[in-house]
Amino acid sequence: MSVRAGIIVTGTEVLTGRIADQNGPWLSDQLLALGVDVAHITICGDRPADLTAQLRFLADQGVDLIVTSGGLGPTADDLTVATVAEFCDRELLLDPELEDHIADIIRRFRPHIPDLDAGPTRVGIRKQAQIPVGASAVPPTGTAPGVVIPAVAGDRPVPTIVILPGPPGELQAMWHSAVASPPVAEVLSRAADLRQDTVRAYGLHEAQLAETLRHADTEIADLDRLEITTCLRHGELDMVTRYTTRDADIYRHLLAVLTDHHGDRIFSTDGSTIDDQLIDALDGRSIATAESCTGGLIAARLTARPGSSAYVMGGVVSYSNDAKSDLLDVPADMIAAHGAVSEQVAAAMAEGARRRLGTDVAVSTTGIAGPGGGTAEKPVGTVCFGVSIDGRPTYTVTRRFPGDRERVRTLTTTAALHLVVAQLERQ
Amino acid sequence: MSVRAGIIVTGTEVLTGRIADQNGPWLSDQLLALGVDVAHITICGDRPADLTAQLRFLADQGVDLIVTSGGLGPTADDLTVATVAEFCDRELLLDPELEDHIADIIRRFRPHIPDLDAGPTRVGIRKQAQIPVGASAVPPTGTAPGVVIPAVAGDRPVPTIVILPGPPGELQAMWHSAVASPPVAEVLSRAADLRQDTVRAYGLHEAQLAETLRHADTEIADLDRLEITTCLRHGELDMVTRYTTRDADIYRHLLAVLTDHHGDRIFSTDGSTIDDQLIDALDGRSIATAESCTGGLIAARLTARPGSSAYVMGGVVSYSNDAKSDLLDVPADMIAAHGAVSEQVAAAMAEGARRRLGTDVAVSTTGIAGPGGGTAEKPVGTVCFGVSIDGRPTYTVTRRFPGDRERVRTLTTTAALHLVVAQLERQ
Repeated sequence: MSVRAGIIVTGTEVLTGRIADQNGPWLSDQLLALGVDVAHITICGDRPADLTAQLRFLADQGVDLIVTSGGLGPTADDLTVATVAEFCDRELLLDPELEDHIADIIRRFRPHIPDLDAGPTRVGIRKQAQIPVGASAVPPTGTAPGVVIPAVAGDRPVPTIVILPGPPGELQAMWHSAVASPPVAEVLSRAADLRQDTVRAYGLHEAQLAETLRHADTEIADLDRLEITTCLRHGELDMVTRYTTRDADIYRHLLAVLTDHHGDRIFSTDGSTIDDQLIDALDGRSIATAESCTGGLIAARLTARPGSSAYVMGGVVSYSNDAKSDLLDVPADMIAAHGAVSEQVAAAMAEGARRRLGTDVAVSTTGIAGPGGGTAEKPVGTVCFGVSIDGRPTYTVTRRFPGDRERVRTLTTTAALHLVVAQLERQ
Repeated sequence: MSVRAGIIVTGTEVLTGRIADQNGPWLSDQLLALGVDVAHITICGDRPADLTAQLRFLADQGVDLIVTSGGLGPTADDLTVATVAEFCDRELLLDPELEDHIADIIRRFRPHIPDLDAGPTRVGIRKQAQIPVGASAVPPTGTAPGVVIPAVAGDRPVPTIVILPGPPGELQAMWHSAVASPPVAEVLSRAADLRQDTVRAYGLHEAQLAETLRHADTEIADLDRLEITTCLRHGELDMVTRYTTRDADIYRHLLAVLTDHHGDRIFSTDGSTIDDQLIDALDGRSIATAESCTGGLIAARLTARPGSSAYVMGGVVSYSNDAKSDLLDVPADMIAAHGAVSEQVAAAMAEGARRRLGTDVAVSTTGIAGPGGGTAEKPVGTVCFGVSIDGRPTYTVTRRFPGDRERVRTLTTTAALHLVVAQLERQ
């Protein structure tokens, strides 16, 4: 029996597109991992009538659980708790213990506030300490507590509702205690024992995978018991499969068919990313970057990971030709002869970065990200790569990527990581 | 009279959080600019019943316009057009001209497909060329045409519905012709003449702005006729105000109050970003970067802009101490004496980058992004900056940023741009 949930994201800044919502996708992923089927995510602004309409919609759709994010602040336009309480026909009551708890937090965070009892700060605390009758508070990690309201059966049943704050850090930190609360635990206990596995491929087209899946359907009985989604991102094709544990054999069979057809393109079946695999492939070796068209994106991606200073020595963004010569020792006459976007220059950049930064490995990019700069011979999207590994001849390759400047730069960054891993694994 | 709209984003990969939706925010922003009040954004997977429920919900909410994205591909799980047609009680008909048009596009994009009439490709084309009776096609920029279905009055009125493909590039390219179609133009003609203006501040707290707005409310009559939203992003505070043209005087008055209170923190009132302002402030001068904790993010941000090669010469990501010495001439004994995270090293890095890359301006960052590496004296989040401008003493400053590694790196990148602009404007 499947448990269904809906997510409501509130906030005019999200509805109007000024802030990209992080909470909907995050909550959806968490609920999926708990075996819950997320049917709808809805986004509304700070208007109570629109929030009420979305609550009504989800309740009428028969979901077992609604999770909301946002609208828990101390100011007058933060209306989620009051609106949900009215929807559930529950009175709001001040929880004195919660009021003290919030006041303590504010005292700790903002020691310069002289008198909490004066004026707007106390009004704000009292507002945040109001909890619907019969509901329980989720302890705050910021200043805003969350709320869990148990389901009510009846003619128009109301599902279990979890109210969480908008800042993603707070919401994520409070999620686990919301999940552990008895009303939510009860809903989750009815969820199926679901698994979710990811196969990642690089250099594989969606149409090719679709054809293999059609073929698999003729070969594997009950393949339709698996819920398969494919998605293309930054040039990588992910296939995510959800299934109940009793269908694990069907998934294993599917994985065998996929590996049989596309083994050379599949780089991950255990959820690991190419960034994870690069660390493994480096195996203690150090790396440097020499970037032209990616302008620092590869270095930024390598250093995004905590602890990366152990193996990333640094890099050079050689945007101008002078920078290529002065900082990476690319001969000016090589640039004149072959052009800055050439495999010769890519090789010299990678070798220069490895020598100058004293690393075991270096990767380079030089290309035309657009929109200008393309020629008939080297159109926008043309990128040359170099991978220099200590003790081996430098590897170079030219690729052509579709799309606008941002897309070319992103695809180039992902391609560079795949090329480094492939070369390192070629021992 | 206000025109209300709803947006439906379809796609299991979006619903399950594996891909962040770009279309909801983009469409919302476009509709706002056209004076339309977006009431709801809803997200569903590839299940027809859930899409139908969302269409019913929005229609019952009385919206004048629904825009959907996604589910227009050639495969069997792309069901948007069929589902919407059924919702509107309109039959699907094959449009032979559209079929030819799509076939032409596929011939151009994939010349290696030998015979379009064979098998699955032709089935897919026929599927994409089906249009509900009485609807019109929006010419495709990929292979999937969009659809515009006119509103129908009655007991349960159906609003005007625009169906667009999921890939953001295609959706955005097709938007303008969807907007120009007669049914949509008719809806938009009823929209109010709305304006939207943005004030951007740096170094201003939300609470300070809230207090100023409360003060403005006592001073300005009818301030509540403006719809004001504030949002904090990467350390910048944006205040976006929507108002009808006849309330322009109220907005002008508000702007005067804001400038009076926070003139030194407000850096933009015309919608320009700090990235835009950096170009103006450079005024033809060239720039280089020297990055430690930001690891290439500043260079990547500077080079994200088309044409940036005219003034960005490049940069050095000096993650290791050796890289700081070897590539930026930071004396090793300076690092030993003051630590890599020090204003002395930041100054030397900026000066080294300016000299090595031969630029007029250079900016440097060296700091502790975390989670490790913090000390009592220099906790995680401590960052030293240097700005070197030809002919002036090097400016340095130390800041402390809150949050995790990603947040510290992002806040540092934004801070660096603000510091460069401030120093350039200090002529």
